[in-house]
Amino acid sequence: MTKLLILGRSGRMGQALIEAATADSGSEVAKTHDHGENLINAFDGVDAAIDFTVHNFTESVLDAALETNTPLVIGTTGHTDEEKAKIIEASKKLPIVFAANYSIGVNTLFYLTQKAAQILGNDRFDIEVTEMHHKHKIDSPSGTARRLLEILNEETNTSYEDDVAHGRVGNIGPRPPKEIGMHTLRGGDVVGDHTVMFAADGERVELTHKASSRLTFASGAVRASIWLQGRAPGLYDMQDVLGLK
Amino acid sequence: MTKLLILGRSGRMGQALIEAATADSGSEVAKTHDHGENLINAFDGVDAAIDFTVHNFTESVLDAALETNTPLVIGTTGHTDEEKAKIIEASKKLPIVFAANYSIGVNTLFYLTQKAAQILGNDRFDIEVTEMHHKHKIDSPSGTARRLLEILNEETNTSYEDDVAHGRVGNIGPRPPKEIGMHTLRGGDVVGDHTVMFAADGERVELTHKASSRLTFASGAVRASIWLQGRAPGLYDMQDVLGLK
Amino acid sequence: MTKLLILGRSGRMGQALIEAATADSGSEVAKTHDHGENLINAFDGVDAAIDFTVHNFTESVLDAALETNTPLVIGTTGHTDEEKAKIIEASKKLPIVFAANYSIGVNTLFYLTQKAAQILGNDRFDIEVTEMHHKHKIDSPSGTARRLLEILNEETNTSYEDDVAHGRVGNIGPRPPKEIGMHTLRGGDVVGDHTVMFAADGERVELTHKASSRLTFASGAVRASIWLQGRAPGLYDMQDVLGLK
Amino acid sequence: MTKLLILGRSGRMGQALIEAATADSGSEVAKTHDHGENLINAFDGVDAAIDFTVHNFTESVLDAALETNTPLVIGTTGHTDEEKAKIIEASKKLPIVFAANYSIGVNTLFYLTQKAAQILGNDRFDIEVTEMHHKHKIDSPSGTARRLLEILNEETNTSYEDDVAHGRVGNIGPRPPKEIGMHTLRGGDVVGDHTVMFAADGERVELTHKASSRLTFASGAVRASIWLQGRAPGLYDMQDVLGLK
Repeated sequence: MTKLLILGRSGRMGQALIEAATADSGSEVAKTHDHGENLINAFDGVDAAIDFTVHNFTESVLDAALETNTPLVIGTTGHTDEEKAKIIEASKKLPIVFAANYSIGVNTLFYLTQKAAQILGNDRFDIEVTEMHHKHKIDSPSGTARRLLEILNEETNTSYEDDVAHGRVGNIGPRPPKEIGMHTLRGGDVVGDHTVMFAADGERVELTHKASSRLTFASGAVRASIWLQGRAPGLYDMQDVLGLK
Repeated sequence: MTKLLILGRSGRMGQALIEAATADSGSEVAKTHDHGENLINAFDGVDAAIDFTVHNFTESVLDAALETNTPLVIGTTGHTDEEKAKIIEASKKLPIVFAANYSIGVNTLFYLTQKAAQILGNDRFDIEVTEMHHKHKIDSPSGTARRLLEILNEETNTSYEDDVAHGRVGNIGPRPPKEIGMHTLRGGDVVGDHTVMFAADGERVELTHKASSRLTFASGAVRASIWLQGRAPGLYDMQDVLGLK
Repeated sequence: MTKLLILGRSGRMGQALIEAATADSGSEVAKTHDHGENLINAFDGVDAAIDFTVHNFTESVLDAALETNTPLVIGTTGHTDEEKAKIIEASKKLPIVFAANYSIGVNTLFYLTQKAAQILGNDRFDIEVTEMHHKHKIDSPSGTARRLLEILNEETNTSYEDDVAHGRVGNIGPRPPKEIGMHTLRGGDVVGDHTVMFAADGERVELTHKASSRLTFASGAVRASIWLQGRAPGLYDMQDVLGLK
Repeated sequence: MTKLLILGRSGRMGQALIEAATADSGSEVAKTHDHGENLINAFDGVDAAIDFTVHNFTESVLDAALETNTPLVIGTTGHTDEEKAKIIEASKKLPIVFAANYSIGVNTLFYLTQKAAQILGNDRFDIEVTEMHHKHKIDSPSGTARRLLEILNEETNTSYEDDVAHGRVGNIGPRPPKEIGMHTLRGGDVVGDHTVMFAADGERVELTHKASSRLTFASGAVRASIWLQGRAPGLYDMQDVLGLK
């Protein structure tokens, strides 16, 4: 049973982490921490710590982890170069998981998309990507869709700039074989749906991920914290945790 | 049992009509006709005729139908104004069904989309339309999708020019409430998929039609020919046949 | 702007109602009420009240509504016969909406399913129903799926006992034409998905509802409360509110 | 450019093979053969032969392939033990692909399902399988669905007899964690849809294959014939061809 310290107890993500760590049969919430409380005390006696607060808290967290020799899962984003350098430096002495997306399902979709692209290619199969998010999202495509396109571009010798079509209207002519269609739906409060489709004459293969709550990201982070136990110092991501490398 | 004359026996659509008329428990194939055969003889003794050949054969077909007083289903498209005038003229003496799309499913989708738009509106619900067709299709969106957008525009006080978004890329900002997203997928040999989605906070309603063969258009035409029995002279479409007016 | 009283302020459904009433451009939260507070005071000066607390509070709510002449939306279930009689009695003097499901989307699905069944029938089309709910749900099919089957049975002259197939395994033989397949998926924390499919040779029509939060039920109740303004005394349901009768 | 001999020229599958071999940029139809024609002459000068005729023709085909030293793709099924022994014997001298299903997409679905099951497991994720076929199909689940269940059983330490639920009705109680739901839809003329779903709290991963024509099997066989070029003698299947072992 991995004893966890959850940072940012009162935040929405902190609450989700506490729920996920309690639900997972391999972990328990040993300590929690919130703004203004003593950090070293919080780290005392735990097997790993999970931080999804804000990036400018990372340096303090790293110091406490180093002092108590505690493995760390970092879920914050937007770090400065200096903060990133600190993370890399700390990972020489501690095992640290640092990933942009902790969802097990999304990371699995990344992996399966790569495999499918390697097997099916874009010679006989036409590739189309669809994503849907809530109406408030201001950028398109989503970061996850961008990563899917990167994977597809790498495996099919295409590029985001030259081969991705964002919408089709008018007399478009026959579909260029190497084109990848990218379709961005917006509406309601959808947390995030992504589909990669490979369509050939006579058959289609579709890979889909649907997120319905941020608990999914919390569950992935808890799984990463358990995976860290007994691990050598180093900087890991979710592909490492899931054994997808 | 409605006795049918199928015109264009050797063509792909003629073959589909023969198959559909044989399968329908309310009709039978009494006569067939092909290029170069006597047309009046073919019309003799049947309850209705179905023509999906070519538009410049329509005038001959109308003459034979008028002479034998036979109800008619016209599935050809691309008529000249003169040919259209002839159809309207003939419909004063004969009951004629003349529609651009004979699929019962697509016409049902049109009807349900109208009802759903009336009930759900575009105040709380965000509307998105998706279609997929084979890689050879050269125009976008499809004619069926254009008709769906017309229906949605009428019911939500929006316009094709101002409110339909064909693709979204970059810093798009929050979704404009009246916007209708239109997404055109192309790939493989897909005959035709269409989905209308209404997405609100907490729920989505989706209406989908998937076509997999031209037999669907043949079945609708056969149904129209049966419906014509005992009908008064006039020009009808599939909404009339399906009782959707 | 309809001034609302929300009962059960501190409950999960009360919170959802406050959020929905605030979001709706036609209503505002004028008063809220919670356990132990004065009920008549709460009713004073509002245009309608919404109660999703517990059924044994209904009699007190009815008394206060009658005394203050306030239209009422009742979302509680499980009433005794005596309580139901009280509701009917009160509806002779007050306009009351009393429905088992306040989701606009689900009620729309009911309506569209009826229309589709009337148009498509079960002669050429084969009907299949699919639902998915979270892994904790202990009964199958869901109440909503049961209602969908009722509608389909009514429109296709079939019965739940004789024609609904709950799963198929082994040497089942060709599909009986009047059979309705019912498929119950369970997994994760899915709030509720329902699909009605009509499949014929060459085409399929699918009607789908996906619920992702209980806010959807709150939004429907708020809409019902606005609809009640200026309404004659009587007992109404969501089909009345949505104009689907 | 691989020069192919297509056997069974006038059959439906022979026609599909000719179409697929012509469409593939790596192959061409050098020869075709039909009932009653000289077989050795047909094999003369080709790089590979594809046989989807009938299993009792296999021995003649093997003899001709051995005499002309021609790699072979065998797509027939239902062989007797004696015929199977002949195939194995011939594969000591010739490279032969012999598979039950030549669809690249279905074989890819098998592979991705195995990977997904290994990554996601059935601890946090609930597994559900859905298939749909035309109304004439007399057995359930489909052979492809059975193979998917075998893969899932192997990877999750479950069994077809104890853990697969074919339909759910009544007071089923909470979902058993190791259960795999199997849902068989029947309707219209659907060629074959299969979906494997992994559902956890907060997210779902879905893998789908949709077949729309037998051309998909022909394309896979053509791909296998090209892959055979320069291959050592041996008995191979589609997992070998696709590099999925």
